[in-house]
Amino acid sequence: MTFAATVLTLYPDMFPGPLGQSLAGRALQRGDWALNAVQLRDFAQDKHRTVDDTPAGGGAGMVLKADVLAAGIDHALALQPACPVLAMTPRGKPITQARIRQLAEGPGVTLLCGRFEGFDERIFAGRPVEQVSLTDIILSGGETAALAILDACIRLLPGVMGAASSGTEESFEEGLLEYPHYTRPVEWEGRTIPEVLRSGDHAKIAAWRKSRSVEDTRLRRPDLWERYCGVRDQSASGARHEDRDTDR
Amino acid sequence: MTFAATVLTLYPDMFPGPLGQSLAGRALQRGDWALNAVQLRDFAQDKHRTVDDTPAGGGAGMVLKADVLAAGIDHALALQPACPVLAMTPRGKPITQARIRQLAEGPGVTLLCGRFEGFDERIFAGRPVEQVSLTDIILSGGETAALAILDACIRLLPGVMGAASSGTEESFEEGLLEYPHYTRPVEWEGRTIPEVLRSGDHAKIAAWRKSRSVEDTRLRRPDLWERYCGVRDQSASGARHEDRDTDR
Repeated sequence: MTFAATVLTLYPDMFPGPLGQSLAGRALQRGDWALNAVQLRDFAQDKHRTVDDTPAGGGAGMVLKADVLAAGIDHALALQPACPVLAMTPRGKPITQARIRQLAEGPGVTLLCGRFEGFDERIFAGRPVEQVSLTDIILSGGETAALAILDACIRLLPGVMGAASSGTEESFEEGLLEYPHYTRPVEWEGRTIPEVLRSGDHAKIAAWRKSRSVEDTRLRRPDLWERYCGVRDQSASGARHEDRDTDR
Repeated sequence: MTFAATVLTLYPDMFPGPLGQSLAGRALQRGDWALNAVQLRDFAQDKHRTVDDTPAGGGAGMVLKADVLAAGIDHALALQPACPVLAMTPRGKPITQARIRQLAEGPGVTLLCGRFEGFDERIFAGRPVEQVSLTDIILSGGETAALAILDACIRLLPGVMGAASSGTEESFEEGLLEYPHYTRPVEWEGRTIPEVLRSGDHAKIAAWRKSRSVEDTRLRRPDLWERYCGVRDQSASGARHEDRDTDR
């Protein structure tokens, strides 16, 4: 089945952009996913094709009009009624690999990209839109966020990745960072590949990788580590351990 | 001064991609920033132009070779010795708006994009590379992450944004989400713009916006809220409040 990616944007020419090449590009050519980049300006309600206006209460920048956004969303929902609509906004819920996996298992996704100061807030009350944040940095628009989210979905579609196992042994899939990788040459500038990885002992290798995942997550990402311990404790005891904070 | 963006990638044609249009595109044409997308394959050490090899210890996917990466990084450092080198990897430190602001104030940035399973870990010991993660989702390569990070930097360069104040009153800049926006029409589908925003009372508007920033951050992003309270308490008392967890 073809995954339907619909993008509502003032810059449809930005798509597929980088997703027209490499893994995503080949998947697009094969028909594993389809792209419909829709010009939001086509839904302007006046002859000047106005999409934005000054913020109520004053301030810099411009705000995308609720009526224009609603017309664009209604169009996308008419085309793809089963696809969730995600608005790219720093006020949204941080995207997770779990949500990406859900999206990739579905019929597709509609991504609403803002520019300027953002969306008229009333659109989120008036239409079924999920507010999503890619990361805690400010972009000039939602387009690069949409590209990253689509890329993350596309690589999980059936048949897109060469080896199926590539999809699951990754950072975040188990709530941990992935272990470090090494490849030939065995020695490079005086640094050698850890001996265990050259041992051929699969059990030892798996144990080393798991311990590096755990250790690197604990040291580099205390936020992920805390969550991982919480989930682990819950599944072990059926109740959240109140003393897990001592792990910090 | 021109901000020097160097990208080391197997897909240089993905750049400038979306950054060739809109705000970033106009800034590129004006010379506010310059792009040098470098083909990593040019630094392969053999006649087959091999850039990757199988992971030591087994497993799916391919790993980018340390020798190839080092040659590419050395090339970029020779061209732009003052620009930090950031590798796009989910094992890296999450990018923040504070780091983006630092980068935008500097001479430029070199972004190293991986594909496949990632980088030979020894490159991080052998070269001065900052490991950076865009967000906790898995991309098929670092290119879309690099595009987002460049976009975030470029909008902060002098002269790029129309109104200077657009840069600072944003989500994350003060550790809070930005307040919601509204614009005309005053009534849309029975929903009206909050009255305070139509009052013309600038002090009241500022107070309303601040309280919405605070409230939305607390409800939507307990992680940001907790950090914000920690920083606030520290600056108020000179010491970290040990009881701030009760705020959760």
